[in-house]
Amino acid sequence: MTTVSYAPRDGQVLGSVPETAQAEVGMAVRLAASAAARVGESSPSERRAWLDAIADTLELHQEELAQLSDSESALGLDRMRGEVLRAAGQLRFYGKVAAEGGYLGVAIDQATGGSPRLVRVNRPLGPVAVFGASNFPLAFGVLGNDTGSAIAAGCPVVAKAHPAHVLTCQRLAELAIEALDSVGAPAGTFGMVIGLQAGVDLVRASEIKAVGFTGSQRGGLALWGIANERETVIPVYAEMGTVNPVVLTTDGLANLDEVATGFVGSFTLGAGQFCSKPGLLFAPAGARVAEAVAAALSRLGPDPKMLTQQIASNVALGIDQMEAAGATVVTRVSGTDQGWAADAAVLTAPIAALTQGSKLLEETFGPVAVVVEYADLSELDEALGRMQGSLAASVFGGGEDDQDAAHAVDLLAHQAGRITVGDWPTGVAYTWAQQHGGPWPATSSPATTSVGAGALDRFVRPVTFQSVSDAALPSAVRPVVAADNPWRIPRRIDGVLRTP
Amino acid sequence: MTTVSYAPRDGQVLGSVPETAQAEVGMAVRLAASAAARVGESSPSERRAWLDAIADTLELHQEELAQLSDSESALGLDRMRGEVLRAAGQLRFYGKVAAEGGYLGVAIDQATGGSPRLVRVNRPLGPVAVFGASNFPLAFGVLGNDTGSAIAAGCPVVAKAHPAHVLTCQRLAELAIEALDSVGAPAGTFGMVIGLQAGVDLVRASEIKAVGFTGSQRGGLALWGIANERETVIPVYAEMGTVNPVVLTTDGLANLDEVATGFVGSFTLGAGQFCSKPGLLFAPAGARVAEAVAAALSRLGPDPKMLTQQIASNVALGIDQMEAAGATVVTRVSGTDQGWAADAAVLTAPIAALTQGSKLLEETFGPVAVVVEYADLSELDEALGRMQGSLAASVFGGGEDDQDAAHAVDLLAHQAGRITVGDWPTGVAYTWAQQHGGPWPATSSPATTSVGAGALDRFVRPVTFQSVSDAALPSAVRPVVAADNPWRIPRRIDGVLRTP
Repeated sequence: MTTVSYAPRDGQVLGSVPETAQAEVGMAVRLAASAAARVGESSPSERRAWLDAIADTLELHQEELAQLSDSESALGLDRMRGEVLRAAGQLRFYGKVAAEGGYLGVAIDQATGGSPRLVRVNRPLGPVAVFGASNFPLAFGVLGNDTGSAIAAGCPVVAKAHPAHVLTCQRLAELAIEALDSVGAPAGTFGMVIGLQAGVDLVRASEIKAVGFTGSQRGGLALWGIANERETVIPVYAEMGTVNPVVLTTDGLANLDEVATGFVGSFTLGAGQFCSKPGLLFAPAGARVAEAVAAALSRLGPDPKMLTQQIASNVALGIDQMEAAGATVVTRVSGTDQGWAADAAVLTAPIAALTQGSKLLEETFGPVAVVVEYADLSELDEALGRMQGSLAASVFGGGEDDQDAAHAVDLLAHQAGRITVGDWPTGVAYTWAQQHGGPWPATSSPATTSVGAGALDRFVRPVTFQSVSDAALPSAVRPVVAADNPWRIPRRIDGVLRTP
Repeated sequence: MTTVSYAPRDGQVLGSVPETAQAEVGMAVRLAASAAARVGESSPSERRAWLDAIADTLELHQEELAQLSDSESALGLDRMRGEVLRAAGQLRFYGKVAAEGGYLGVAIDQATGGSPRLVRVNRPLGPVAVFGASNFPLAFGVLGNDTGSAIAAGCPVVAKAHPAHVLTCQRLAELAIEALDSVGAPAGTFGMVIGLQAGVDLVRASEIKAVGFTGSQRGGLALWGIANERETVIPVYAEMGTVNPVVLTTDGLANLDEVATGFVGSFTLGAGQFCSKPGLLFAPAGARVAEAVAAALSRLGPDPKMLTQQIASNVALGIDQMEAAGATVVTRVSGTDQGWAADAAVLTAPIAALTQGSKLLEETFGPVAVVVEYADLSELDEALGRMQGSLAASVFGGGEDDQDAAHAVDLLAHQAGRITVGDWPTGVAYTWAQQHGGPWPATSSPATTSVGAGALDRFVRPVTFQSVSDAALPSAVRPVVAADNPWRIPRRIDGVLRTP
C-alpha cells in the first residue's frame, strides 16, 4: 500500500510513499517506549534544547518546507512560509513552558506531627500518538502543537502522517529525527508512521499512553472509540471543531460594512479550512445583513482550492444539504473546474430551521457560511441553546455599553472554549492564556487545550510520593523537592503557592 | 420500588425508603440546572460559607449520624464518629481550596502591539452527579469528597444514595439541604435521588455535566459506558480501585514482625473494605514472610462484618477463585455465621501464577491478601509489569541506602497514583499534595484525583475571553481581572505566575 500525494491546484500526482506495515508500527512504538524512561527523566531544560533544535532546522529549511507544503496544500507560499516560522515558534514556546515548570504542579506537604510528607508532581504519561490536521501542515501537523507539547511534557511521540501532505510529513520527520539526534535526544523521541491502518494499529498499541488528534469529527470519534475498546483505555484529545457562532447586536449594525467584510475574510481564510472558522452569523432581523455579506463575498471573488478532492466535493454536498434543511443561497461564487476547486457561498436560513440534528448546526468545512436573523434576544438565546459546543464564539457589538453584547458573551461562555469580542475567531495565538478546546463534540476532552501553555497538561499525570526520602525519589523529581529549588519552578508548600 | 436498609451485624431490616421515579429525577436535575448559574457565579468565599454550614451541621449531629451509619455499616461507632468529623473537615478544606483561588487557573496575556488581551479562567461545568462509596458512608458518601469539591468549584450536585446505607444518605441530604438553605445557597445546590434506575436516569439527564463515582469496577465502568453513549458525552470520574501492591525488600526483612503486623492491620482495617487496601505483598523468597503474616492474622482474630450480603459472599467466592488460579490458603480465620460475616485470609501464590487475566491480579474486596515470593529483582520487575494500574503502591525497605527499595519506588511510580515508603497505603489525607487516583482501571481518569486540593479541577473547564472588556466579562470573572486582585488569588500575567 502507498499513500499518494496530489497537487490541489491541478490534481496532478506529486509522489507517493509506502505505508507502514503492522510490524513496523510495532517497531516504532517499541522504540518510543524504550526512549520513554530517558525522555521522562530528562530535565525540562534538556527537552527545551531538543525542541529548539527542531525549531532551528525548520527555520533553516523554511523555503524548502514552504514550497513542498504549498505544492501539497495549495494554501499559498506566503502562508506556508509564515506557518514554518509559526511551527518553529510553537516548539520554542512549549520548551519555554516546560522550563518554567508550572506544568509540573509541584505540591509538598511537609511532615508534621503524625502526618507524613507528601510530594506531588506531574509525571509524563509515556509514548503519545499524534494525528495532525490537514489544514495546517506545519503548525498543526506532525511537528505541531500536539508534538511540541507532548515532548515538552516528557513524552516520546509517534506521529501519523497526514495523507493530504504526506511528502511534507516525511520531510518533517527526517528533519526532526536528525535534529533530535544531533543534540543527544534518545532515539525514539520522535517517530512517524504512514497510512490509515498504521494509525489504527498505533492507537491500539499497548505502549501508546495517549492520543492527540486534530481533524474531522468522524476521524476523531473513530479514534476515541478505538481507544475506549483497549484493555487499558487511554485518553484521546481530539480537537474536532463544530460551527463557531457569531452574534451581531443591534448596536453592532453601525459598523455593518466592516463586519460584513471581516466576516467574509474570516470564513474564506485558507479556503474556509479553519477549525476556528465562523460558520453562522446571528444578525438582527430586517437589517439586510446577509446582503451586505454577499456583496463583500462577491467583491472578494476567491477561487479556492481545497486540501483534498474529498473536502472539495463535501463543500458542494454541504451546500445542498443546507438548502435541503431550509437555507437559501444568497451568493455563490463558482470556482474554476481545475484541481480540487470549490464554490464559496453565503446562505441565509430562518432561525426556526435551526432544529436539533439539522445540517445547519453542523460544520461545513470550506468557504461557506450562513446568516440567520433573530427578532429579539429571547429568540437568539433559544437558538444558541440548540447549537453544539464550539471551539470559539464571537460577538460584534457597539462598545462597552452594549448590554446585548454583554448578554451574548455570558451565554456563549457556556458553550465555547474561547469568546472573542470585536475580533474574528480564526487566529489562535500560542500563548499562556490561550484556550483552544470546547464542549463536546467540539473536542473530546473539553477541559483541555491543544494550543497554549495548558497543552502540556494533557500528557502528564500526578503522582504523590508519601514518606519517600529524597534519595529514593525518581531522578526527575529530586531537584523539585530540594530546598534551594535548583530548577527555579513554582511550588506549593503546605498549601502556599511560592514562585521562584 | 423501595430500597431496604439492613444491619450487617444480624441481617435485620432497619427500614426502607421509596426510590425516586423518573419524573422526580427530572425534577431534581432541573432544580440543579436552575441553580447552576447562581452557584457558578457565586464567589469562592460564598461557597466556602455554604460548605462550612454543612460541616457545622454534621458536627452538631455527630452522635446521631455515627449511630445511624454504624447500624447500617457495622464499621464501628468510634470509626463512624471519626468519619463524621472527617467529612466535616473535608468540606471545610474544599471551601478553603476554593477561596485560595489557584483552582481558577487564571492567566492573563495583556494586549500588546497587534495581540489582543486574553483572559483565561476555569469555569464550573454545571450540575454534577455524585455516586458515593459503600465503605465510607460519610467521608466518601453523598456529602463526601466529590460533593465537597464539586460545590467548591461552583457546581450544584445531585447525589445518588448508596443502597448499603440509604437511611444515612437520607438524613445527610436533609441536613445538607437545610444547612444550605439557612445560609442562602440557591435551592438545588444539593439534591439526592434513590434507586439503581434513578442513578441511570441521572447520568442520562442532559442537564448533568459530569459524574463523580467511588465504588466497584463493574459499577464505575457501567456509568462510564452510559455517559459515553449520551448525545453530549460527559466526563465520568470513577475511582474504582484495583490490587494495591506492596514490595518488601531484602533489607526490609530486618523488621519482618513489624511489617507482618502492619500488613495485617492495614488489609483488615474496616474489614478490608478500603480501596487503598494493600492486597498483594511481594516478599524475598525463602524468608517465610507468608508464615509471619499468617501468625499476625491469627493473633488478630477479627470477626469482620461486611457492608452488604453481596460483598460478604464475594469474599468467599474470591478466595475460591484465587485458589483456582494457583494460590494456597495459609491461614483463614472464620467469621461467625451471624449477619454479613466473612472470613479473613492470607494466601500465597507462586509468582508465575500472576499471569494476565488471573484472578490474583484482581481486587478481592474484603480482609484477604496474598503473599508472593520473588527470587530476584528481575522477576519482581516482570511481575509488577503485569499488574493493573493501582491507586497506591508501597515499599518496605531498609532505609535510605536500600537500592532495591529505590528501584521499587521508581518502577511503581509508573503504575500507581501514590507511592508510600514505610507507610501502609490505607490512610488517605485530604491535603494539598494528595493524589488519590491511578492508571486505568484503578480510575477512569488517571490524571485526576478524588481527594485533595486537585479534586476541584475535575469540575471546571477553561474559557478564554479575547478582547472582552472588563464590564462584559461574566460577573464571577470580573474580580479575577481587576488590577487590585480583590479575591487575592494567584494569577499568571504575561506568563509570569504571581501570588497575591
